[in-house]
Amino acid sequence: MNVQSEMSRFARRLDRFLDSVLPAEDLFPREFHKAIRYSLFVGGKRLRPFLLETVYGLFRDDRERTLPFAAALEMIHTYSLIHDDLPCMDNDALRRGKPTNHMVFGEAKAMLAGDSLLTFAFELMATRSDFEPAVTLRAIALLAGAAGFRGMAGGQFADIDSEGKEMTQPLLEYIHTRKTGEMIRASCLMGALLASAPDDEREAVNDYGKWLGLAFQIRDDILDRTGTAQQLGKSPGKDVSSDKATYPALFGMETSLHLAREATQKALDALKPLGEKERAVLEDVAEVLCRRES
Amino acid sequence: MNVQSEMSRFARRLDRFLDSVLPAEDLFPREFHKAIRYSLFVGGKRLRPFLLETVYGLFRDDRERTLPFAAALEMIHTYSLIHDDLPCMDNDALRRGKPTNHMVFGEAKAMLAGDSLLTFAFELMATRSDFEPAVTLRAIALLAGAAGFRGMAGGQFADIDSEGKEMTQPLLEYIHTRKTGEMIRASCLMGALLASAPDDEREAVNDYGKWLGLAFQIRDDILDRTGTAQQLGKSPGKDVSSDKATYPALFGMETSLHLAREATQKALDALKPLGEKERAVLEDVAEVLCRRES
Repeated sequence: MNVQSEMSRFARRLDRFLDSVLPAEDLFPREFHKAIRYSLFVGGKRLRPFLLETVYGLFRDDRERTLPFAAALEMIHTYSLIHDDLPCMDNDALRRGKPTNHMVFGEAKAMLAGDSLLTFAFELMATRSDFEPAVTLRAIALLAGAAGFRGMAGGQFADIDSEGKEMTQPLLEYIHTRKTGEMIRASCLMGALLASAPDDEREAVNDYGKWLGLAFQIRDDILDRTGTAQQLGKSPGKDVSSDKATYPALFGMETSLHLAREATQKALDALKPLGEKERAVLEDVAEVLCRRES
Repeated sequence: MNVQSEMSRFARRLDRFLDSVLPAEDLFPREFHKAIRYSLFVGGKRLRPFLLETVYGLFRDDRERTLPFAAALEMIHTYSLIHDDLPCMDNDALRRGKPTNHMVFGEAKAMLAGDSLLTFAFELMATRSDFEPAVTLRAIALLAGAAGFRGMAGGQFADIDSEGKEMTQPLLEYIHTRKTGEMIRASCLMGALLASAPDDEREAVNDYGKWLGLAFQIRDDILDRTGTAQQLGKSPGKDVSSDKATYPALFGMETSLHLAREATQKALDALKPLGEKERAVLEDVAEVLCRRES
């Protein structure tokens, strides 16, 4: 599979769906409409929705049914970026090559735009799913769990809490597997859950997502050191200057590259229960994500 | 019905439930556990959960089934208070008589505690409901709608957006019915929805909640002018000093008192389709809320 072109094609389809479900221009006040859409349409890779759709597609053909869930994943991811960029968090001025939400709309409106995207993600799943209600509820629970206390928000909290404290490998892995890893794992698992995949394949996809998430975040840390602003669409070297907990900071660059490869390999190893064709698709995806330069 | 004592009894029951479902002390880092619980257990009236439980109780006896939804309402209300109090929003140092969340834990952690409470509210409904999955999904959609773009968050956005602009009665009513009103309306309607109340009674309860929400917020505006810090548990006169859009600011105190009474009367008028006994309960609740001094 040509992962890049599949991703681009899927991103266009998802963007059309997002545009159709988000509040139209009649939303009051007009600036709210703008603030919500600004960060969502600033041009992300749509990685999490793509993982969901790709995994679902291994088991079933009617992929368009997953769009409300794919959109919800992207909304929750976008909310987390808007809040993460705020002055009280990472204080970032640039994201995906554009000024961050609060630089354009101010802090209060940016926070509310993030809050609303998180809230709307759940409304969308609850109102637009055409899966069995019980399956829809399991998907909502999965996503809320991955984004919450013991998932993404927990990782961010631990990240902030660790500032100025001694960093250890278990703590760094705790932060990374939650801050980034949980939403990537949930994206993969949601595909298998919605497709009602057999238990062992569901488990395989879950493990794949878990290791892929860790590999992805280590790659992110590495790119923060080696990438340019143009490649990254955000300010590089940010982690170093803010003394952030990263793999390169703790292990150096060479070991970090090794650990990223190791995590990727564990992701591939997890796929054994899948058929050959299915395995090949997810191997391609992992290879592209772990070699990416942006 | 003795509304005050019923509210206190219910609040204790809800608090036990909240305590049992929230992450225990093993949540990492420990401070996350504290930041989440701090604002939730600082002693609110539990008004929204009480409305849900009271309306449900008009139609069915097994009230304890509503606890996951009651808890979700309170979590979403608490998240909104935490975010509202942040420096970039209302910049409040005092809430329910105690320092606000960010005064204790800092801005970043307070924001994440709010984000997590919002997220967990949906996880709780999706995992702990023992209503039919389709009914549970309708309740989730109702709550997400009331908290989101066109509900609470929309009202807050409009409120911020209106600062420094000319205030009109329609705009002020727009802000108030959404910022506070929508969650109160949703609390009432959710009781009727979970109880599978007949359409006309459901509609009646919805209208009751709508007008009650407006009356409640006008009362809040009035108390901000007349109350003491001890009565309110927060700094009074805050709206005046920050030039907030309020009923007293736009209409003066006498007209505001009249409009609050008028909204309360509309809430009572909406109850006609209900039986005499049911009507009496909700009349008592409205009277207490609209005469409150804190």
